[in-house]
Amino acid sequence: MTVLPSFVQDRWQTPEDAGRPVHDAVTGEEVARVSSSGVDMAAVLDHARTVGGPALRVLTFRQRADLLDRLAAYLRDHREELYALSARTGATLFDARFDVDGGLGVVKSYVALGRTELPDATYLVEDAARPLGRGKGTFLGQHVCVPLRGVAVQINAFNFPVWGPLEKLAQSLLAGVPSVIKPATPTAYVTARLVELVVASGVLPAGAVQLVCGGVGDLLDHLGEQDLLSFTGSADTALALRNHPVVSARAVRFNAEADSLNCSILGPDAAPGTAEFDLFVDQVVTEMTVKAGQKCTAIRRAFVPAAVQETVLEAVVDRLGGVRVGNPADPDVRMGALAGLDQRDEVRAAITRLRKAATVAFGDPDRVAAVDADDTRGAFLSPILLHGADPDLEEPHSVEAFGPVCTVLPYASVEHVVDLAARGRGSLAGSLVTADPEIARRVVLELAPWHGRFLVQTTANAQESTGHGSPLPTLVHGGPGRAGGGEEMGGVRGVLHHMQRTAVQADPDVLAALTGQVGP
Amino acid sequence: MTVLPSFVQDRWQTPEDAGRPVHDAVTGEEVARVSSSGVDMAAVLDHARTVGGPALRVLTFRQRADLLDRLAAYLRDHREELYALSARTGATLFDARFDVDGGLGVVKSYVALGRTELPDATYLVEDAARPLGRGKGTFLGQHVCVPLRGVAVQINAFNFPVWGPLEKLAQSLLAGVPSVIKPATPTAYVTARLVELVVASGVLPAGAVQLVCGGVGDLLDHLGEQDLLSFTGSADTALALRNHPVVSARAVRFNAEADSLNCSILGPDAAPGTAEFDLFVDQVVTEMTVKAGQKCTAIRRAFVPAAVQETVLEAVVDRLGGVRVGNPADPDVRMGALAGLDQRDEVRAAITRLRKAATVAFGDPDRVAAVDADDTRGAFLSPILLHGADPDLEEPHSVEAFGPVCTVLPYASVEHVVDLAARGRGSLAGSLVTADPEIARRVVLELAPWHGRFLVQTTANAQESTGHGSPLPTLVHGGPGRAGGGEEMGGVRGVLHHMQRTAVQADPDVLAALTGQVGP
Repeated sequence: MTVLPSFVQDRWQTPEDAGRPVHDAVTGEEVARVSSSGVDMAAVLDHARTVGGPALRVLTFRQRADLLDRLAAYLRDHREELYALSARTGATLFDARFDVDGGLGVVKSYVALGRTELPDATYLVEDAARPLGRGKGTFLGQHVCVPLRGVAVQINAFNFPVWGPLEKLAQSLLAGVPSVIKPATPTAYVTARLVELVVASGVLPAGAVQLVCGGVGDLLDHLGEQDLLSFTGSADTALALRNHPVVSARAVRFNAEADSLNCSILGPDAAPGTAEFDLFVDQVVTEMTVKAGQKCTAIRRAFVPAAVQETVLEAVVDRLGGVRVGNPADPDVRMGALAGLDQRDEVRAAITRLRKAATVAFGDPDRVAAVDADDTRGAFLSPILLHGADPDLEEPHSVEAFGPVCTVLPYASVEHVVDLAARGRGSLAGSLVTADPEIARRVVLELAPWHGRFLVQTTANAQESTGHGSPLPTLVHGGPGRAGGGEEMGGVRGVLHHMQRTAVQADPDVLAALTGQVGP
Repeated sequence: MTVLPSFVQDRWQTPEDAGRPVHDAVTGEEVARVSSSGVDMAAVLDHARTVGGPALRVLTFRQRADLLDRLAAYLRDHREELYALSARTGATLFDARFDVDGGLGVVKSYVALGRTELPDATYLVEDAARPLGRGKGTFLGQHVCVPLRGVAVQINAFNFPVWGPLEKLAQSLLAGVPSVIKPATPTAYVTARLVELVVASGVLPAGAVQLVCGGVGDLLDHLGEQDLLSFTGSADTALALRNHPVVSARAVRFNAEADSLNCSILGPDAAPGTAEFDLFVDQVVTEMTVKAGQKCTAIRRAFVPAAVQETVLEAVVDRLGGVRVGNPADPDVRMGALAGLDQRDEVRAAITRLRKAATVAFGDPDRVAAVDADDTRGAFLSPILLHGADPDLEEPHSVEAFGPVCTVLPYASVEHVVDLAARGRGSLAGSLVTADPEIARRVVLELAPWHGRFLVQTTANAQESTGHGSPLPTLVHGGPGRAGGGEEMGGVRGVLHHMQRTAVQADPDVLAALTGQVGP
């Protein structure tokens, strides 16, 4: 069986040991083995800093955007291959497109940004010069943003093996900072193929991208003051990385996107029979089933007016009854497998904890009739809809089942639901379906402090809406508290995250030489 | 002896125990006792969140700016009293003005910002609405910044007992977030008086400001996902706070400004006899002596072309010979005392370490002829100029003596000096004196990644320049790596640090109701 190589110091390196097996999520067959043994982590970082960084920093934002554009074009031509590999992770074609085309979409968005919103320069002048003295205009201040001299290390989640690395790469490359990609083991073979394509494209300068499959080893010990560490995944791992002695002692720039207890709220006005009610039901079912619910933005808590909770349950249950679970290669299948049996065990354990505060309204956590597949070998799980009749119990607000699982919770009033929503202690995404702009205004302003992104779904925007669960490159992605306290994308903001903002104080001539702008 | 009270839950509370004595830096007399015993830290935070926060959040930025304006006016009328107290910390009148007037200057700057750059609204709409869909214009995205629902806890350094709390208070109040001020014990009596004046002004709503004198006790254990923790002081304490289990697990927004090994560079063109050479010498002497060198931005490493190192040493030594050290109440005294005998012991210990790599060019670390004072009772220390003939030795780049101490280090070329400067591993402030714009450009671009602020001092801006060591409210203050990786001030950036940025997705009508703006 293939042991996945790592791409380090611009060559492919095969691990020294047999590695850890990774299994096809659908058939249980071994797909690949993964190990980072033999990789010299200090040399990886050094190569990025001494070869990749200088090569990227001499390019202007426009030139870096051109590289990204050519890279995206090459990858687009090879995306069928990534779809096929993705099927082995349990992803349907729809899921694979969400991951692959979504990732390319982020890259294209940063190409456009690099060409239109950033200058044809190697660094960014952020604001206008400002007089700092007492009126003579000889002493000015201005902020420049320059690429960090280090490396952007991305430790990715298993659920988006293409989108995850690409969205981070787009931002770091545009900033002029080289990357080291560390994929999650269960889907590392997809990311490894992605990086093979990146290398084969021949577009990027040496040292700009490296790949470390397997464990991080002692990589974190070698991080320095100019490096960045981005993590997507569980809150526990985020905490361990944040508190790593080197990361904290050297103030390594750290960004976390952690799974959160995202909510969607059915507005008090959106009674059964309204178009809003149907939109809400649609959205809950979509978020449960796309990627088999393995999205850090998926709806975990569905808040509904107490009076309509039974009607909501009935409607969602009715829709879930039509969802075929099984082999994602089968065109009739709507929902594929979880990423692996370990993941399914974790989700089942979380469901058990949730059942202390909720009853199962749909699905059997222990078995599912998998179309064209064997649910004892593949990591299949039925969508599980829970009903938490008492929304004041703790579990629905703190236990995340990272799979096709959602809990319907009743609320009494707008005051009540914003209080309940905040008990998630910080989320990546929230949403509200309503036809009442005043309710929208109240809910958004109360819940904005707890969310990185908040969607107000109405009939007016339903057709164009990208939905609750989709982060968009022009909007920030991240969230406070439990969601990790991070922020990425959001257009230029995500690029600036990879740069040092420095206040420069100088006379008008010196400043003009630096910024290409004339002082006031 | 007075035990300093804390101002908690809108009343003054006297500690339950006798507290820890704090001594006059000049005479050694006991000035006050400090303790937080009996303070219910959870109740302090709860009061801020439930009383102060709501009261501030209903105000618009303009109204908050008005409060700050009235507060500044009241404090200005009482500043003589703060100067007098500051003298007991060892500060000269010049030093006290730097602290007190500097702090009021930051407040006034944020008053102006609140009135001119922020809207008459309770939250901020950060950007224009952006279409997110496929061309129909029914689905838009826009970022709003809303006040965090928590409390801004500031743990301050001893060196600026007025500027420190005021600059942080200005930003948090303008953002709509209540504050808890925890002064450093050696100068807590100055901050306590400042807060007495703030309370006496009657300007701020209940719960907006609280004061905890003494230890933090279990305060950090009660922080939550919407709180902020700002720290100014040593890198070691910054690390302990950053890694506190609650701070990291709840992703409490953390900002550190840590002491750093700031440098100033004499340009290769600035030969002895030039005006630039004299500017450099001036600046080194100023940074060594203002606040007795107890500034986190002070120049610790003075890089000079190797060929002129002796001339620089002679010039600085000559100037230092004219600096009178002693009782700051004496108008002939140029440099007062360190904040206390403990601080002097620490500085002496650091000098001992620095002497492994440098020789003493001026001053005796063990004694000084203190004018109008007794240097065995007061915390006096001579300015100490060191000469590190071999700039490749480690200590000058890693050991900080937080006092009137600076090391002159020779360099060979521009490449060499930017490499040496970066060995500080991240600084708050750097500077260069030159007449050559091309040298300025090269040095700034090489060193910007390592600095939060960089000053290019020329003869053109010398008259207006605020100097190497002065953070300014319109410019960011902070720095990467060893400097803590934080950022504050910088105009509106420091206000936004206290707010949650949230991407709102909605149709044009809903968005307009939220942002007061019409969609595209």
